[in-house]
Amino acid sequence: MGSLFGHDNQESFNGFFNPSITKGEVITCKAAVVWAPGEPFKIEQVRVDPPKNMEVRIKILYTSICHTDLSGWKGENECQRAYPRILGHEAIGIVESVGEGVNDMGEGDFVIPIFNGECGHCAYCKSEKTNLCENFRVNPMKSVMSSDGKTRFSTIDGKPIYHFLNTSTFAEYTVVDSACAVRLSLDVPLKKMCLLSCCVSTGLGAAWNTANVKPGSTLAIFGLGAVGLAAAEGARSRGASRIIGVDINPEKFVKGKSMGVTEFINPKELNTPLHEKIREMTQGGVDYSFECAGNLDVLREAFLSTHDGWGLTVILGIHPTPRMLPIHPMEFFDGRRLVASVFGDFKGKTQLPHFAKQCMDGVVNLDGFITHELPFSKINEAFKLLGNGESLRCLLTL
Amino acid sequence: MGSLFGHDNQESFNGFFNPSITKGEVITCKAAVVWAPGEPFKIEQVRVDPPKNMEVRIKILYTSICHTDLSGWKGENECQRAYPRILGHEAIGIVESVGEGVNDMGEGDFVIPIFNGECGHCAYCKSEKTNLCENFRVNPMKSVMSSDGKTRFSTIDGKPIYHFLNTSTFAEYTVVDSACAVRLSLDVPLKKMCLLSCCVSTGLGAAWNTANVKPGSTLAIFGLGAVGLAAAEGARSRGASRIIGVDINPEKFVKGKSMGVTEFINPKELNTPLHEKIREMTQGGVDYSFECAGNLDVLREAFLSTHDGWGLTVILGIHPTPRMLPIHPMEFFDGRRLVASVFGDFKGKTQLPHFAKQCMDGVVNLDGFITHELPFSKINEAFKLLGNGESLRCLLTL
Repeated sequence: MGSLFGHDNQESFNGFFNPSITKGEVITCKAAVVWAPGEPFKIEQVRVDPPKNMEVRIKILYTSICHTDLSGWKGENECQRAYPRILGHEAIGIVESVGEGVNDMGEGDFVIPIFNGECGHCAYCKSEKTNLCENFRVNPMKSVMSSDGKTRFSTIDGKPIYHFLNTSTFAEYTVVDSACAVRLSLDVPLKKMCLLSCCVSTGLGAAWNTANVKPGSTLAIFGLGAVGLAAAEGARSRGASRIIGVDINPEKFVKGKSMGVTEFINPKELNTPLHEKIREMTQGGVDYSFECAGNLDVLREAFLSTHDGWGLTVILGIHPTPRMLPIHPMEFFDGRRLVASVFGDFKGKTQLPHFAKQCMDGVVNLDGFITHELPFSKINEAFKLLGNGESLRCLLTL
Repeated sequence: MGSLFGHDNQESFNGFFNPSITKGEVITCKAAVVWAPGEPFKIEQVRVDPPKNMEVRIKILYTSICHTDLSGWKGENECQRAYPRILGHEAIGIVESVGEGVNDMGEGDFVIPIFNGECGHCAYCKSEKTNLCENFRVNPMKSVMSSDGKTRFSTIDGKPIYHFLNTSTFAEYTVVDSACAVRLSLDVPLKKMCLLSCCVSTGLGAAWNTANVKPGSTLAIFGLGAVGLAAAEGARSRGASRIIGVDINPEKFVKGKSMGVTEFINPKELNTPLHEKIREMTQGGVDYSFECAGNLDVLREAFLSTHDGWGLTVILGIHPTPRMLPIHPMEFFDGRRLVASVFGDFKGKTQLPHFAKQCMDGVVNLDGFITHELPFSKINEAFKLLGNGESLRCLLTL
């Protein structure tokens, strides 16, 4: 087994793994199942079917928790409520077996699941303008596999357990469409690469691909969670001159300072509107702002904090509110622009292997994102750490 | 005088013009003055001061009427209400005299006034990213000259008459900042070049500069007034394959057909939402949409009519409503983008002379925009023609 991980792999993995026994069989293993909105996860035995055509069964090694899991767990959106369900979308694992037709990966490969898949042959995948695949793009409403509308998970007594975000990584084994798994090289640092599955790609890609941050430019980041700090790292690596971090939790400033953020604002300590403060600090506004808070009032401040004429605001936060955008159409005539970024505008299968290499080559620095590590059995504790703003990423070891 | 107009000039101008007499003097001439919101224009004698430093006094030859004049006339926005006032911003004229420091134009030059000026030395003018000058950008609230906060117009008994949009072209003579006048060559077709002062530059530039329409692409234009049809001509000249015109006035379709629009939709005749119809017609939506109606519900339809993943909506309409944008922030995650365009993103002084040449070289076709011609004295009639949707542009001859 040792050779699987390559001599450069800095991290060791000692899990049991024997695909020759499990291939083609239903696997019974542990998963963290949610039975109703906001109810604690129950670690229980589930059955995981073999992968069908163009599907992959993955043994999850590490998984971490993102705010989208929090949102899915709470069932904030009515349509998301498919229970019982296995959440989780940020992970790294090893391919246990592949279904018919899968040629780009095989047993023993390291893969990261991606919630925003890439089929490679639809009009969207063929276009350079978008990373939204027609068939496997992110869809929080989806709860079954595409090919047959069924689940690959079931309870011991045969009741279906629903999927989440094309991934469902809170399980020892999961089945995903091969369009939603990216093969990495064998020498990757497993724990850090887990983050490319969501937060790091999302934040860093927003700075690189969506905003295309230029050297010497200025920016403000609203919300210093893992995605916001990844955007900061993306901007730092592009040579941005000023990276202003905005958060109401001053503990984030300590973290941010070690991760490239150059200045901090706590809106609670201001007497003036936030955007006025930022415009004053930056001779008219920042070149880019990144909204990572999922709050519409924050989004408006982020929009107004940019420089008129050319400012660009990138929406990264998830906004469960029914409220519409609090921006007047005439305000767009000041030349400020507003776009949203999904998965950092990375085309997952095509571009992440190179991005992983850049991470390993030190183009970007992924130290500091993993603030906690817990065994998988403590998933409820890990959710609390994120919900309370104590962790950036808590890695769960399976 | 004849040589002033060049042998290529296809149009003749026989007005009286003798700068050697008027230079440095107050000129008494006719202007169309508005005394209160929505009140008929009164053609009356006004006094026009000589240009001060960096200003230009222009003898207006032709002026036309745009919806922004309509909006200013109605005083739709409280802050716009500076009366008595001389409206008008789409025109062509001859420089009568220039103030100190003006070196880029002189007596007898043909110029078009531009409501969105270009000082040439501010940070905005020096940036390639915007055409919004720090000092002379479009500003409907502005009603006096920048240099001294005073007006150059007054009534015969000395009461100030306010300026409008940096231009005030409903007068035989006007004074503008030299940043707001573009010198054209002497062989330009005067009547058509008048349109470059606003509608043609705005619509065509939105297609060329803001959207950067690609050959073979598809688009929809919401509102087939002069700006909308100029956007159509811009897209046609770029090789767009389908140009869908949307209007509730079917008479616009006849006009549109002769001006490059390939298909028409009258929303009043639809049973399905407009954006669904357009998506159905275009396999998922158009590449670009242009909102030229100044209506928020139309703007939402324009946004949703574009293709997800890469659709771009350009706001051109003026929205006097206090309502905010009826788009949900999560809708941006479908990859649709929304921007506004001011003066077609043209930098007026730098880029319009070349654009005028392109118009004369037949790159674009400006036939068809001028649907009516009236003497200046019939300005109230011309306003009615535009307000009723009967005219695209009614040219007023001074």
